[in-house]
Amino acid sequence: MKIVVLKFGGTSVGSFKRIRIISKIIISYIKKKYAVVVVSSAMSGETNKLIKKSKEICNNFDKSEYDVLLSAGEQIACALISGNLIRLGYKSRSFMGWQVPILTDTNHGNSKINYIQKNNLIKFLKSGGTPIVAGFQGVNNKFKITTLGRGASDYTAIMIAKYLKAQKCIIYTDVEGVMTTDPKVYKNAKKIKIISYEEMLEMSSLGSKVMQSNSVQDARLNRINFDVRSSFKSTVGTSVTKRKNIKNNKVITGISLTKNDAKVTIVGVKDKPGIAASIFEPFSRNNINIDMVVQNISANRHDTDITFTLKQDDLNKTLKLLKLNKKITYRKILIDKNVSKVSIIGVGMITTPGVTYRMFKSLSRKNINILVISTSEIKISVLIKSINVKKAVSALHKEFKLDK
Amino acid sequence: MKIVVLKFGGTSVGSFKRIRIISKIIISYIKKKYAVVVVSSAMSGETNKLIKKSKEICNNFDKSEYDVLLSAGEQIACALISGNLIRLGYKSRSFMGWQVPILTDTNHGNSKINYIQKNNLIKFLKSGGTPIVAGFQGVNNKFKITTLGRGASDYTAIMIAKYLKAQKCIIYTDVEGVMTTDPKVYKNAKKIKIISYEEMLEMSSLGSKVMQSNSVQDARLNRINFDVRSSFKSTVGTSVTKRKNIKNNKVITGISLTKNDAKVTIVGVKDKPGIAASIFEPFSRNNINIDMVVQNISANRHDTDITFTLKQDDLNKTLKLLKLNKKITYRKILIDKNVSKVSIIGVGMITTPGVTYRMFKSLSRKNINILVISTSEIKISVLIKSINVKKAVSALHKEFKLDK
Repeated sequence: MKIVVLKFGGTSVGSFKRIRIISKIIISYIKKKYAVVVVSSAMSGETNKLIKKSKEICNNFDKSEYDVLLSAGEQIACALISGNLIRLGYKSRSFMGWQVPILTDTNHGNSKINYIQKNNLIKFLKSGGTPIVAGFQGVNNKFKITTLGRGASDYTAIMIAKYLKAQKCIIYTDVEGVMTTDPKVYKNAKKIKIISYEEMLEMSSLGSKVMQSNSVQDARLNRINFDVRSSFKSTVGTSVTKRKNIKNNKVITGISLTKNDAKVTIVGVKDKPGIAASIFEPFSRNNINIDMVVQNISANRHDTDITFTLKQDDLNKTLKLLKLNKKITYRKILIDKNVSKVSIIGVGMITTPGVTYRMFKSLSRKNINILVISTSEIKISVLIKSINVKKAVSALHKEFKLDK
Repeated sequence: MKIVVLKFGGTSVGSFKRIRIISKIIISYIKKKYAVVVVSSAMSGETNKLIKKSKEICNNFDKSEYDVLLSAGEQIACALISGNLIRLGYKSRSFMGWQVPILTDTNHGNSKINYIQKNNLIKFLKSGGTPIVAGFQGVNNKFKITTLGRGASDYTAIMIAKYLKAQKCIIYTDVEGVMTTDPKVYKNAKKIKIISYEEMLEMSSLGSKVMQSNSVQDARLNRINFDVRSSFKSTVGTSVTKRKNIKNNKVITGISLTKNDAKVTIVGVKDKPGIAASIFEPFSRNNINIDMVVQNISANRHDTDITFTLKQDDLNKTLKLLKLNKKITYRKILIDKNVSKVSIIGVGMITTPGVTYRMFKSLSRKNINILVISTSEIKISVLIKSINVKKAVSALHKEFKLDK
């Protein structure tokens, strides 16, 4: 039995027309003699409607009942998909989390899967049936419904692929795959055919919103190869796999960029041990995400300048917290709201010298000033003026031959 | 532990305001030291929305998946009620059919309850919790979700009252109880304080739509006393119980009436054995419900006249079937679309002679002509011209002292 797990996101099952279309996709695999396990999200908009209902009751709705409420969304979608397959003459059945069962911990709203019992699914597959499994939900050891966090239907699909030792796992979504960069910024952006988990993680944490980072990480930890492709177009998507499987001579795989960043510089901070912790502790306590951080020697030898970036939305709150902070003294604060982070990502840079140089050279050739730099093993990020983003992406895309 | 089962229908939980109001009702019982089990329907309109979704897929949607789809409605309502009780500081938890579990047969869409495991509910009640049980749904021995038929949340409540040996079972709805007659027809209609199962069954099968007849029958078979009352007004409702518990000297309990009836007379049918069967068999095969039937000797000694009543909606179909019927010959067909059935109902009539006489006398005093008569142990029905209904109900209501 060669098993394929097909996961459909909210927009892929967002209407009756869409359910008919994805039924055709499912049937195409059945006809290719695959034993198909479908994992579905709620129809797009449904989860938000249910969340709204909970907010009508109160803002801190009980987490356990919240899971009961939200899991109704996938229940509806799965029943409709299964009902449509049956109408078309195929044996099918919906499986809620508790029916598989998908056993999770008790962390309501953000549970982790402990174990998936495969017997029920395998038995149904062997009988020629196509199980439609509700994504995003499970059941804990107290027989209570749990949910796995938003976007976690991908996680369900990947874990089912793991426990059922599936040959393929395909994440159907509303984009065609992972692109070398944002096509809205650079029109020659190309689809990436194959990408490593690590690159995919960097791409998604840097703004390429194809999949939640968590689910990519779960796939990486469990060594599950998967494809991301569109349920709207029949084009080939992007394969996500471990580095070893990638035989490609590109130095970098993609260019990601962020929008709506802001830069803050605290000038003339009294330099003493633990000063960085004193500055950043209140931000972390208030759930403000600080991204890049640079500490420079200031003009005055006993002072230092600290620069960091964050989302524009958090800027006002951050400035307030800085003013309230009694543990630090400084001369002044400079802010810049019109900055963006552009990153080049690729496992190829590990073995290829001179990537940093080529990046800086390309940018300087276009007279683009680099404000902050940060690097990791497979990524180099630079902060630049937002006005320069298009120019920068275009130059880098060409420099690293991503146009081909 | 004195247990009360409180069942709330769709309109009782039809909005967030309503959920807040019924929470107050629930809490009032908790404060009176009851162990409260709540049974809830889906919010009004929700089930119809889900049915509509299934119809978008196809008209003969798979019954098993239909149950999965529909049961999401109660899941949403129960999570919201439970979440609201928790917000107010009470320990609460929703229980879906499979979590109780409520074990049913496999007759999807119209399952019967085989057994309710009480341990989980009792344990939660003993811990001081208020379980919110999803009405209308159960689980079969294949771990599939089943539903109990429309309006069957009452059935869930009654069976939970049975298995938990509840002291009280209260059906909260949008009417104040069972009325002596339709207040729209006769404004002095009074609420009935106590009524037997059998009378209630006659009342509901004759048009007083307080509860589905099935659920009343289930209560009767299991000897579960219950109250019907309004969640919109804090008035006392109607108690439904076995005849023995009723110590009341009224001869009749209520007057029910039907609207939109039609009368058909087949004049001069050749009288031979089995002729009635030949006439009615095609109706039954076509799901046409025939109500009253009378066979008279015709003017011609070898012929007979057969009169029957049915719903006006079925009249055209019935006439067509009569014309197609090759097994019978007759002289002509007379129809009357403006007829209504008025029934007096009461266990008191078993032990009280002269009830029929009093009914006929009252009607004749008002010059109301009786077209057809039919009687049962606790009911006398007469067919009259619709134009006379108000007059008839008024006369009978007074004759049998229901005004007091």
